[in-house]
Amino acid sequence: MKAARLHVLGQPLSLDTVPVPDVARDEVLIRIAGAGVCHSDLHIRSGEFPLPPGFELPLTLGHENAGYVEAVGPDVTAVKRGDAVAVWGGRGCGSCRICRQGDEQCCNIALWVAAGGYAEFMHVPSERLLVKLDGLDPIDAAPLADAGLTPYRAIKKILPHLYPGAAVAVVGIGGLGHMALQILRAVAPSTRVIAVDVAPERLAAAAELGASDVVDARRDAAGEIVRLTGGEGAQAVIDLVGSDASLRTAASAAARKGIIVLVGLGGGTLPFSFLGLRSECTVTSSYWGSYTEFQDVLALARRGSIRPTIRRYPLDRVNEALDALARGEVQGRAVVTP
Amino acid sequence: MKAARLHVLGQPLSLDTVPVPDVARDEVLIRIAGAGVCHSDLHIRSGEFPLPPGFELPLTLGHENAGYVEAVGPDVTAVKRGDAVAVWGGRGCGSCRICRQGDEQCCNIALWVAAGGYAEFMHVPSERLLVKLDGLDPIDAAPLADAGLTPYRAIKKILPHLYPGAAVAVVGIGGLGHMALQILRAVAPSTRVIAVDVAPERLAAAAELGASDVVDARRDAAGEIVRLTGGEGAQAVIDLVGSDASLRTAASAAARKGIIVLVGLGGGTLPFSFLGLRSECTVTSSYWGSYTEFQDVLALARRGSIRPTIRRYPLDRVNEALDALARGEVQGRAVVTP
Amino acid sequence: MKAARLHVLGQPLSLDTVPVPDVARDEVLIRIAGAGVCHSDLHIRSGEFPLPPGFELPLTLGHENAGYVEAVGPDVTAVKRGDAVAVWGGRGCGSCRICRQGDEQCCNIALWVAAGGYAEFMHVPSERLLVKLDGLDPIDAAPLADAGLTPYRAIKKILPHLYPGAAVAVVGIGGLGHMALQILRAVAPSTRVIAVDVAPERLAAAAELGASDVVDARRDAAGEIVRLTGGEGAQAVIDLVGSDASLRTAASAAARKGIIVLVGLGGGTLPFSFLGLRSECTVTSSYWGSYTEFQDVLALARRGSIRPTIRRYPLDRVNEALDALARGEVQGRAVVTP
Amino acid sequence: MKAARLHVLGQPLSLDTVPVPDVARDEVLIRIAGAGVCHSDLHIRSGEFPLPPGFELPLTLGHENAGYVEAVGPDVTAVKRGDAVAVWGGRGCGSCRICRQGDEQCCNIALWVAAGGYAEFMHVPSERLLVKLDGLDPIDAAPLADAGLTPYRAIKKILPHLYPGAAVAVVGIGGLGHMALQILRAVAPSTRVIAVDVAPERLAAAAELGASDVVDARRDAAGEIVRLTGGEGAQAVIDLVGSDASLRTAASAAARKGIIVLVGLGGGTLPFSFLGLRSECTVTSSYWGSYTEFQDVLALARRGSIRPTIRRYPLDRVNEALDALARGEVQGRAVVTP
Repeated sequence: MKAARLHVLGQPLSLDTVPVPDVARDEVLIRIAGAGVCHSDLHIRSGEFPLPPGFELPLTLGHENAGYVEAVGPDVTAVKRGDAVAVWGGRGCGSCRICRQGDEQCCNIALWVAAGGYAEFMHVPSERLLVKLDGLDPIDAAPLADAGLTPYRAIKKILPHLYPGAAVAVVGIGGLGHMALQILRAVAPSTRVIAVDVAPERLAAAAELGASDVVDARRDAAGEIVRLTGGEGAQAVIDLVGSDASLRTAASAAARKGIIVLVGLGGGTLPFSFLGLRSECTVTSSYWGSYTEFQDVLALARRGSIRPTIRRYPLDRVNEALDALARGEVQGRAVVTP
Repeated sequence: MKAARLHVLGQPLSLDTVPVPDVARDEVLIRIAGAGVCHSDLHIRSGEFPLPPGFELPLTLGHENAGYVEAVGPDVTAVKRGDAVAVWGGRGCGSCRICRQGDEQCCNIALWVAAGGYAEFMHVPSERLLVKLDGLDPIDAAPLADAGLTPYRAIKKILPHLYPGAAVAVVGIGGLGHMALQILRAVAPSTRVIAVDVAPERLAAAAELGASDVVDARRDAAGEIVRLTGGEGAQAVIDLVGSDASLRTAASAAARKGIIVLVGLGGGTLPFSFLGLRSECTVTSSYWGSYTEFQDVLALARRGSIRPTIRRYPLDRVNEALDALARGEVQGRAVVTP
Repeated sequence: MKAARLHVLGQPLSLDTVPVPDVARDEVLIRIAGAGVCHSDLHIRSGEFPLPPGFELPLTLGHENAGYVEAVGPDVTAVKRGDAVAVWGGRGCGSCRICRQGDEQCCNIALWVAAGGYAEFMHVPSERLLVKLDGLDPIDAAPLADAGLTPYRAIKKILPHLYPGAAVAVVGIGGLGHMALQILRAVAPSTRVIAVDVAPERLAAAAELGASDVVDARRDAAGEIVRLTGGEGAQAVIDLVGSDASLRTAASAAARKGIIVLVGLGGGTLPFSFLGLRSECTVTSSYWGSYTEFQDVLALARRGSIRPTIRRYPLDRVNEALDALARGEVQGRAVVTP
Repeated sequence: MKAARLHVLGQPLSLDTVPVPDVARDEVLIRIAGAGVCHSDLHIRSGEFPLPPGFELPLTLGHENAGYVEAVGPDVTAVKRGDAVAVWGGRGCGSCRICRQGDEQCCNIALWVAAGGYAEFMHVPSERLLVKLDGLDPIDAAPLADAGLTPYRAIKKILPHLYPGAAVAVVGIGGLGHMALQILRAVAPSTRVIAVDVAPERLAAAAELGASDVVDARRDAAGEIVRLTGGEGAQAVIDLVGSDASLRTAASAAARKGIIVLVGLGGGTLPFSFLGLRSECTVTSSYWGSYTEFQDVLALARRGSIRPTIRRYPLDRVNEALDALARGEVQGRAVVTP
C-alpha cells in the first residue's frame, strides 16, 4: 500500500510503498477515506515538536482519520468489514488516573503522533478507538477528529461562564476556528460570538458561520472586543492561534471572572499577573478531546449542526496540502483522500 | 385606583377601589401594563395554598408584573419615572445564607403572595427588584416573570446532564411549558426535546415551538419516551404538571444518571426508590428563579429567542382569565392589562 | 479448591470442591485473603434480587475481595505473582457512554454478582480491575471494596452541599455506616455528623468513630435532627438503610436546598412531592463506586484515616457470617478468610 | 476619637484626633477591638496601589476589623449595642451581576480601601456587613476578615482538584499562609500539604500547623515538589507571594490538570504557555472572599479548627507594626488594638 512518510525532519513526506499491516486481537484495519491535514503535522514535519520517546522515523503522519473497516482481529465485536468509522486518536496508557476518568488524550504517554492516516490503510490498535459514522460521509467526518473535537472540548470548558447575552471571542478562524463558530452556534446560541482574525476572507466566512461580530486582529482587537461588550470584556476567549499577540489580545479582552482557553500551538506566552487581567479571570489550556466528546461532535454533525468546509487532495499531493496550510491558504480544512 | 382583591377564599376576586400607595426610601410605584395569570393564583384563591404568616385578606394577587415607573422614593437611583420595567418577585429576608447567595426566592420568608399586579398601580418595596425592559413590550414581558423564569431555572438545573443528542422530556405544555420549549431551543438546541401533554392542540403548538417529538400523555407516555430514546430514557425530565400521573411518567422515563425536575404544583407524589428509577437518577424541584436568572430570561426575549403567546384580559375580566386557566383553556398565557 | 456456592435460592451456600480457574490474556488468579460479607449477598441468596440475565446457579458469591496474585495471564504487566491486591468489582460493558466516563459500576450490564470471593481462589477477568495494596493488609482491605467504596461515592455526591458548620445525617451505622463516619471525618471534618440508628451499641460505636451527635431512630429522629440543627435540617442525609421509615426520616430531616442520597437496599420508598420536602431539596441514589474512587478509598486507608472494624470467619463458616448479618448482629464487617 | 491616618503617600500614618462618626439608617458604629495589619496597607501607604476614584487623603486604613457595636442607626435590626462583631469589608455596588450573585468583593467598585479600622471607632455603612462573633474574641477574630477569608476562598477554588493523597503546595507562610495551612487541615485533611517559604522559622511554624512537608524556597522548590509527588507535581498550588520567583515555582510544580491560584500581590508574572505548564493546568486568581465565605471562616474558628497567631500593637504603634511587616518580621499576624 502507499503511505506518505516523514523520513527526515524538515523535509517533505515521501510517498512510499509499505506492507499492509496485519490485525490481531481486537485490532482493526481501516481503509482511509479521508485524513485531515492539521497544523500539528507541520510542527512534527519541521521538527519543532520533538518526537516523543519510542517514536522514530520514518513515520506516517495524519491523525484526523475516517474510512471503512477493511479487516478485523479475532476479538473484534463492535464493528465489521465495510462499516464506515472515524478513529479517535487520543489514546494514553489506559490505566493512570487521568485515563481511567476518560481523558486518555491528556495522559503522559501520547501515542497519537504516528496515527498513520496519510496512507491507503491504517492500523488501529483497538476497536475501542472507533466510532461508527452512522450515515456521515467519512471524508466530511475526518476533520471532526481534531478540528471538530478540539474546539468542542474547549467550548465545554467555557460553558459554565456563559449566559444569555454573554460574549465569547474566538481568535483564529482557520480549521479549528471555522468549526468552533459552528459548535458555538449549536451549543450556545444565546451567546454573542465575536470572531477575530487577521484575514478579511476568514472574517467574511466567520460572519456566514454565525459570528455575531468580526474583529480585525491587525488592529486593536482587544479594545474592540471591550467596546463591543460595553466595557466588560468577553466572558470567554478561545485562542486557537496561541501567539504572543493573540494571547495579549485574550488577556486584555477577557472579562472579570472570565476564562481564557488556550488551544493554538503558536508558541506564545500569556503574561499572567494579578492586576494584568480582570479580577479572578482564569487561564487554562485544552488538549484535543475524549472519546465521548468525539461522539458528541459526531452527533452534532449527524444533526446537521456542524459541517467542515473541506478541500480534497489526493494522497500524492499531501505535501501540497501541508504547504498550503503553512502559508495560511487553506479555508476550512484540507483533507487527504487516499 | 382599581385593584382585583381576594376577600374570601374560594370566591372570585372583587374589583375594589383602593388608595394609590405612597413611596418612600428606595420604593417604586409601577403603573401596571401587564400582569400574567398564573396557576399559583388559583391555588391561593381556592385556599389550597394556605396564606403564609403575616398575610391577610383582602389581598391583591398577581406576581408576573411589568409596566412603567410612575413614582420613585427619594433614594431611588436606578430607574426614573416613565421607565419600562419588569418586577422580580422572589424576594426573601435578604440576610440568610440562601438570600446572600442570590437565591432569595428560596428563602423561608416568602413575600411574593401579595405581589399585587392585578391593579392599576403596584407598590414595589425596593428598586432592587426591578429590571429595565430596554425595548421589550411590558405586556409581552409580564409572563416572563414567572412563566419564563421558572422553566429557565429548571432548565439550568438539567444542563449538566445534556450533550448533543441527549433527550429532554417536558411534561405539560401550558403557560410554563410553551416557554420551556422556547428556552430549550435557545440554550440547548442540540438536545432532542420531547413534549408531553394530554391536549392535542397543545401538542400541535409544541411542535411549532421546536419540540422534536410530541407524546400524548393519555397513552403510555413513559413507554413512548423510552422507545423514542432507543431504550435509554430521557436524560432529563421537567415536570410542569406535578400530578401523580405526570410524576409516574417522569420516574419511568428518566435515564440512568438522569434528572427529574419537579416544577408543577399539581400536588402529586413521585415514589422514589432504589430500584424504581434507573441507576443514580436524581429527583429535585425548582422554585421560581433568581434576579440574575430573570435578567437572563429578559436577555433571551430581547434577542428574539423566546416570546410568550399571550391573550389579553382587561382588569375587570381577571376572574374570567382565572376561570379559563382553571379549565385548561388558556393557550400560552393570559395577561391582565389594567 | 474450595468455594462456597449458592445452589438453590433461599438455601445456605454449599462448600464445594471445584477446579482452580485458568488464566489467559490479561486475566489474573487471586488467592483470596479476605472477602467481606455484604447485605447484597443476603438479597441474592434469598432470591430477593433476581439473577441478572446470563447468570445461573450454582454461583460463588462475594464481591469485597482482596488477596495475593497467584497466577497471571500472558498479557498481564501491572501485577506479578505475590502482589497484594484488592479487586474492584464494578465492571460493565466498557464501551457505553457511562463506562467510557469511568462509571462502569453504573453500566446496564452488571457483572459483579458472581464475583466469586467466597473461595480459595478467584478469577479476575482483567488486571485492570486490580489495585495494589501497597502496604495494606488484605483482610482489613477487603471490606473497603464495597463497605468503604459505596459510602465514599455517596459522600462525594454531598460534598458540594457542605460548608463549615453544615450538618450531615448518616442513617444506619452498620458495615457501610461505620465506614461512612470515618470517611466523613477524613474528608469533611468541619461538618457536624449526626449518626442515626436503632441499636444503642451502634450509636455508641458511632460516637467513637467521630459522630458529633447520635440520634435514636426508634424515636422521632427527623424531629431531633431538625432540633439539633436549629430548625434548618441537615444539609445532607445519607440513608444506608433504605426502608420506608429511614426514608421518611430523611425526607423530613433534609434542609432547604439539601440533598438526600439513598444507598441502602432496604426496599423502601421516599414519597417525593413539591411541598413535602424543604425547598429545592434533591433526592438521588448512589451505586457502589468507580475504580478511581476505590483508589481514593485505599489511599485513605493507607493514611490511617479509615479502618474497618472486622470480625473474621473461616470459609466453612460463611453461612454463619451471613446469618449473623441477617440478624443485625455484626458490628462493623464480617470478613471470610479462606 | 483617635485614628491613624495616611496623609502623604510614602509617609507613616499620623495619629489624629477626629470626630466620632454619626450613624443613620442601617449604619453601625463599631468600637474597634482589633484591626489586623495587612500587606495591602503597605501597598497603599507606599502609593504602589493607586487610590481608586473617589478616595482622597487623609485616609484611615485597616480592613481586618472586629469589635463591639457602639451605636446603631434607626433601621438596624440584626445587632444591638454591645454585640461583638466582625466586619466584612468586600462590598461593591450591590446591583451588578457579580454583586447579585454574592461576590461583591469582585465588583468593579472597590470600597474597602478606606475601611477605617486603625481607629477607636469605625463607621460601617450597613448592618449587612457585620457578622456576629458568637463567642469568638474580637482581637483573635480580626485577622480572619482577610488573612483567614482570602486563603479560604482560594482553597475553595482548589477543592474540586483534590482527592485523598493529592498534594497542595502553599507558597508563602506569612499572615495568609499560616491560616491557609490551618484551613487546609480543617477542610481537606486527606491532602498532602507542602509548605514553601524562604524563612526557616516560618517553615518550622508550618510543620506545627499541619504541613506534611516543608520546602525551602531558596533552593529548587519546584523540583523538590515534583520529587515529593513522585514526578506528578502538586494538584494545586496556592501562591500567597506572587513574585516572579514564586510564580515560576508554581508553574513548574503544578500537575497535569492541576490548578494554580494566585493570591499574593507581589507584582510578579507567570508566563503561561501551552507547553510551559503540564497539560490542561489552570491558572487563576482569587480575591478576598464573599460574605458567606466569611461566615464559614468564623464557623471554622468557633469549632477551634483555625486560630491566627497574633502579636498585638496599641494604636499609637501601628507604624511599627507596618514596618515589621514590611521587613518580613511578623510571625502570623500583627493586630492593632486601639
